[in-house]
Amino acid sequence: MSTYTAPLRDIAFTLEHLAGLPELVTWDDFSHADPDLLYGALDEAARFISEVVAPTNVVGDETGSRLNDDGTVTTPKGFKEAYARFVESGWGTLPFPSAFGGQDLPWVVGMAVAEMLKSANTAWSLCPMLTHSAIDALMHHGTPEQQATYLEKLVTGEWTGTMLLTEPEAGSDVGALRAKAAPAGDGTWKITGSKIFITWGEHDFAENIVHLVLARTPGAPPGTRGISLFIVPKYLVDADGTLGERNDIKAVSLEHKVGIHASPTCVMAMGDDGDGAVGYLVGEENRGMQYMFTMMNNARVGVGIEGLSLTERAYQQALEYARVRRQGRAVGAPKTESSLIIEHPDIRRMLMTMKAHIEAMRGLVYVTSAMVDRSRHHPDESMRERYVEMLALLTPVAKAWPTDRGVEMTSLGIQIHGGMGYVEETGAAQHWRDSRVAPIYEGTNGIQAIDLVLRKIPMHNGRVVRDFLAEIAALDSELDAAGDLFELMREALSEGRSALEGATEWLLMCEDPNDALAGATPYLEMFGIVTGGWLLAKGALAASKELEERSDPFLRAKIATAHFYCTQLLPRAAGLMPAVIAGAGDLFEIEPELLGS
Amino acid sequence: MSTYTAPLRDIAFTLEHLAGLPELVTWDDFSHADPDLLYGALDEAARFISEVVAPTNVVGDETGSRLNDDGTVTTPKGFKEAYARFVESGWGTLPFPSAFGGQDLPWVVGMAVAEMLKSANTAWSLCPMLTHSAIDALMHHGTPEQQATYLEKLVTGEWTGTMLLTEPEAGSDVGALRAKAAPAGDGTWKITGSKIFITWGEHDFAENIVHLVLARTPGAPPGTRGISLFIVPKYLVDADGTLGERNDIKAVSLEHKVGIHASPTCVMAMGDDGDGAVGYLVGEENRGMQYMFTMMNNARVGVGIEGLSLTERAYQQALEYARVRRQGRAVGAPKTESSLIIEHPDIRRMLMTMKAHIEAMRGLVYVTSAMVDRSRHHPDESMRERYVEMLALLTPVAKAWPTDRGVEMTSLGIQIHGGMGYVEETGAAQHWRDSRVAPIYEGTNGIQAIDLVLRKIPMHNGRVVRDFLAEIAALDSELDAAGDLFELMREALSEGRSALEGATEWLLMCEDPNDALAGATPYLEMFGIVTGGWLLAKGALAASKELEERSDPFLRAKIATAHFYCTQLLPRAAGLMPAVIAGAGDLFEIEPELLGS
Repeated sequence: MSTYTAPLRDIAFTLEHLAGLPELVTWDDFSHADPDLLYGALDEAARFISEVVAPTNVVGDETGSRLNDDGTVTTPKGFKEAYARFVESGWGTLPFPSAFGGQDLPWVVGMAVAEMLKSANTAWSLCPMLTHSAIDALMHHGTPEQQATYLEKLVTGEWTGTMLLTEPEAGSDVGALRAKAAPAGDGTWKITGSKIFITWGEHDFAENIVHLVLARTPGAPPGTRGISLFIVPKYLVDADGTLGERNDIKAVSLEHKVGIHASPTCVMAMGDDGDGAVGYLVGEENRGMQYMFTMMNNARVGVGIEGLSLTERAYQQALEYARVRRQGRAVGAPKTESSLIIEHPDIRRMLMTMKAHIEAMRGLVYVTSAMVDRSRHHPDESMRERYVEMLALLTPVAKAWPTDRGVEMTSLGIQIHGGMGYVEETGAAQHWRDSRVAPIYEGTNGIQAIDLVLRKIPMHNGRVVRDFLAEIAALDSELDAAGDLFELMREALSEGRSALEGATEWLLMCEDPNDALAGATPYLEMFGIVTGGWLLAKGALAASKELEERSDPFLRAKIATAHFYCTQLLPRAAGLMPAVIAGAGDLFEIEPELLGS
Repeated sequence: MSTYTAPLRDIAFTLEHLAGLPELVTWDDFSHADPDLLYGALDEAARFISEVVAPTNVVGDETGSRLNDDGTVTTPKGFKEAYARFVESGWGTLPFPSAFGGQDLPWVVGMAVAEMLKSANTAWSLCPMLTHSAIDALMHHGTPEQQATYLEKLVTGEWTGTMLLTEPEAGSDVGALRAKAAPAGDGTWKITGSKIFITWGEHDFAENIVHLVLARTPGAPPGTRGISLFIVPKYLVDADGTLGERNDIKAVSLEHKVGIHASPTCVMAMGDDGDGAVGYLVGEENRGMQYMFTMMNNARVGVGIEGLSLTERAYQQALEYARVRRQGRAVGAPKTESSLIIEHPDIRRMLMTMKAHIEAMRGLVYVTSAMVDRSRHHPDESMRERYVEMLALLTPVAKAWPTDRGVEMTSLGIQIHGGMGYVEETGAAQHWRDSRVAPIYEGTNGIQAIDLVLRKIPMHNGRVVRDFLAEIAALDSELDAAGDLFELMREALSEGRSALEGATEWLLMCEDPNDALAGATPYLEMFGIVTGGWLLAKGALAASKELEERSDPFLRAKIATAHFYCTQLLPRAAGLMPAVIAGAGDLFEIEPELLGS
């Protein structure tokens, strides 16, 4: 069984040099947050996560969660206990307002904890993640009474949250949903209908579950403009905060999934035993989709982290194996013994590819998470607006690029193990199976790519994306000034950025939206590759400056990793260009009935 | 549950226009093989495979094979019956000599049957595949007595074959194996030791299993030059061909794998109950590795087919789903209803990517398989030699490129299903899990890449690979002459080929083998992408010529698919160039102990 060691040094490096934590803590809103205390807190969180959460990962995969005949769900051995200790520790409360039991710390610091939790046990971590999304929605759109009733319990984790969006005919197309809400006459609503794919919809972690449900009120317009958001608690909450009757919302079955076995993915039924589950309207009628997007956008970056986290876990396991497994003889090794496989160039290429992607993904998701803080807490209002837009631009990339790469990188983790990688007991395959859901949920990666090309890059006629590309371009002179070591990196980044600029301008000029849609997925991939290279190069420059003060092998490794990525992996970006700008013609050339064999 | 329809039209097209079946049947050795009869036979095989083998696929995944307390293995429901009907049908006998119960047909026709079997049920198909390898080894290296005793039973499939190579400390490094063979004094040998990862090492399909075992004789030199090959039958065979006593070789456990659950992957013990299992030496002592390579090389192409077969099966299922699932609204579709997802450009891109890869992979593995025939049966001896070399060159590519792509393409099959793709009952995930072993077994894809750069392209100082590249270049003028429709394809192929030529020459000049090894995997990928484009373009030209005679949507689709691949996917090849020619420096820049986080 593999252990997990939190990559604290690189997390701190990324927070400091890429996410700009030192700047965040100069602002009034974070004036109580001293970076050293924050890193100390992350150290402690890391110890808790490695020791308490990580050891539950394998048993969770092996036994999964189980729906009992009485409608309760039993989670795998150790899960409930780990969750109780998590609530006690307060590690889930960091980025929330102290008014609701939080610690008023930067969102990006919460994401660093999320990274570690997801590496430790992705299936388990989804429960706090969904709770965070519910908090986010209620903080922004709940009434003061709703906030008073639910928020503190959710922030501490005593209660957990869910999102009930999907129905069998309403997946990517949320607007097609059919769940109904009828006024009960007393200000509450009666909710009926079924929902599928409800992550942690039922479990044994908490005494109450706060479901956020999308449904249609009578006479609501069709599509996404007729959807309202409701709080549907598992147990009704009395005026004094104590739990009252059991609401008519229940899990009726669990999905049998490829991975994240321990995460109960529920089919939920509302109103089976009467005239509906009791629901409380959040905000105004028919604005549910908009509210849901508030929580979904932050959740999307959270899902992006899964690609990072699972690659990190898979990398640690593969690296450990490569350091002890002997097989074959490396070039120049003595004839008398087998070499460690880490001495073989092809194994080293796989490890370096994983490592470089980890650092690129960490940069991307931390920078994007820090934009949540910048968009909310920057002292300058115009900067807050700027970061709202930049966050909007990067969110689909931060969700899709790491999750697609996560599937590939965990697959390399298997490959490094050879035949043992295909045997479940090794554990390498769990990371790969667990990773496969992330490109699908919280908006498939195809939906993210569509969002990027049809909604995000056209913002302000392309100003936002051009500003972002200009930021990448601005690194060029710094790299140029940094000497020979950075010259090849600079050239590769410059070529990748030019390709991305060309692709962006082509998409912005596209007259037929189908042509833009046709190039959406390769464009998002190109965007991710180049952004990853930019962040690695930026980190390498920062490392190089620190190296002027003192020698440090960690810092030298940062530069070597960036060099490998920029000169060997980044050039793939330009190879995607023809697919981005090909238009839709080739895709629709063959009629659907003739696509078969 | 998904059904399987054999892609007979494209199989026939590939046999005719790429593998050159019409030429093969003009040779004396195949003069009895009329193409129309062959295609008729494939039709019948397809019906049998779709109706009898394909329906066992899902149950095989769900229940897996089971080792019983008495050491027997029980295969999933329907497997044994399907196998009995397969033996009865004779579909496994096609490419073997009539002297041993075969039908003297081209190897490539046998591979077409193999493609269909692997699409129908990969786990099941591994049993006949291993049997074919055993036949291959005994045909080439067995004594006449051994051939008389075993070959006909193996050809008909009444008995099955295995390969026992791997031991815990001897995986990729076969030379490290420790199993022992001691002379028994009567011309037979006593074999002791354990082997792991033995596919179909024990089962309930056949009354006897013919194990081919690698072991060391007393005083054998260390490494690969001290390994001998033995026949170790499960039941000893009496002089009259009847089965005698049970030999001391048995399955002691089965692996719990990520996929191909129904294929019993056995740990085999020899000599546990006495002084060793009875073994019969094949050929000469210490030449076992060489003999094993005979069978492994053909088996490698057979494994390559798994990437094709599983992509085909996954594609059929995803296409079917995309044709009935409605979600969202395509550009220009009426507002009143959801569109079929096949109308969305991003879904169409995934489908076209799968389809284009299927046709490229089919071209590659069929062309390579036809080289087995050309190397054995071409009437001109110098041509036979030429094809021995060309086959040697292409074998690692035909094994590794389709199997790596298979994992990616079956993953797209999941993605097209959205959330349903992650639910096991949908069946899309089984193809992905099943596909993951193929880059590992029969020599990992890293080993294939090493074989390609260190042994294959240097053959005759690069003459063989240069001849092959010249064949690709020769298509340029044909494409040029074929008109505007082919111009973009021609340009893309020409650029890809130039990059491959440059990479090849760089590798041939490499002084430090570590630098070549460092570029091996991206080089093999580049080689596969370009070769795939060449074969698709060649097929498109053939289709274009046929279209001059008659209109045919299948032929038009061949051209459209080739156009999509060459203009949109092939340009990725050039993006791999920097990684091929970077040398080993970047890979070894960070010391192993500093690779962690």
